[in-house]
Amino acid sequence: MLGRVNHVALAVPDLAAATAAYEKTLGARVSEPQALPEHGVTVVFVELPNTKIELLEPLGENSPIAAFLAKSPGGGMHHICYEVDDILAARDELKKGGARILGEGEPKTGAHGKPVLFLHPKDFFGTLIELEQV
Amino acid sequence: MLGRVNHVALAVPDLAAATAAYEKTLGARVSEPQALPEHGVTVVFVELPNTKIELLEPLGENSPIAAFLAKSPGGGMHHICYEVDDILAARDELKKGGARILGEGEPKTGAHGKPVLFLHPKDFFGTLIELEQV
Repeated sequence: MLGRVNHVALAVPDLAAATAAYEKTLGARVSEPQALPEHGVTVVFVELPNTKIELLEPLGENSPIAAFLAKSPGGGMHHICYEVDDILAARDELKKGGARILGEGEPKTGAHGKPVLFLHPKDFFGTLIELEQV
Repeated sequence: MLGRVNHVALAVPDLAAATAAYEKTLGARVSEPQALPEHGVTVVFVELPNTKIELLEPLGENSPIAAFLAKSPGGGMHHICYEVDDILAARDELKKGGARILGEGEPKTGAHGKPVLFLHPKDFFGTLIELEQV
């Protein structure tokens, strides 16, 4: 079921400072920041040869990463996104295996304009998993 | 400086259960467990098309992931390992940029038999970064 690691997402309290650390200190290629108000985040992509890192800063009142940063104000590793071929088939198989889908269990349109789902971190040893149909 | 994401490491309290979740529930290819007593972990590799996930369970008395699991007993995302061409050049450049190297600042031989260093997570917004010379 699992395909490529599409991205690893890191929640950061200060996107400009984090971008500078990845670009200048670590010498990586970074994108311009993109505000995604419908997802409650501003994102910068760190482009690596085989995958990407997403730096996420909260945007607006109900950001999905606000609670994470309230608990870890300095930032931290937030989730891993894996690619799948068929997100509905993946969801049905996961549910059959006893895994819980977050929210209402229907795919939403993710930050890349593709259907995504999140799996309950308690079912996967504390790691929040995003699945994205590519 | 940063090359490929070599792996993303997840600390888990029960390696057999985590391996089953990645193999059976998530349908990924997983390795046999490898005990690495000199690193204080037992590791299972989840092989994905573009990178790998390492599931880490503490081994022995002074496991480097014991403190992490004491704080997050259910497990969680532990570190990201990036490949670099020249670990000594990378270290010197990072120190010049103000980043702190963990331990004594000298590369050690990592779980793959290659030289590695860890960077202080407080300098990188809560993410523990491993650099591996490949």
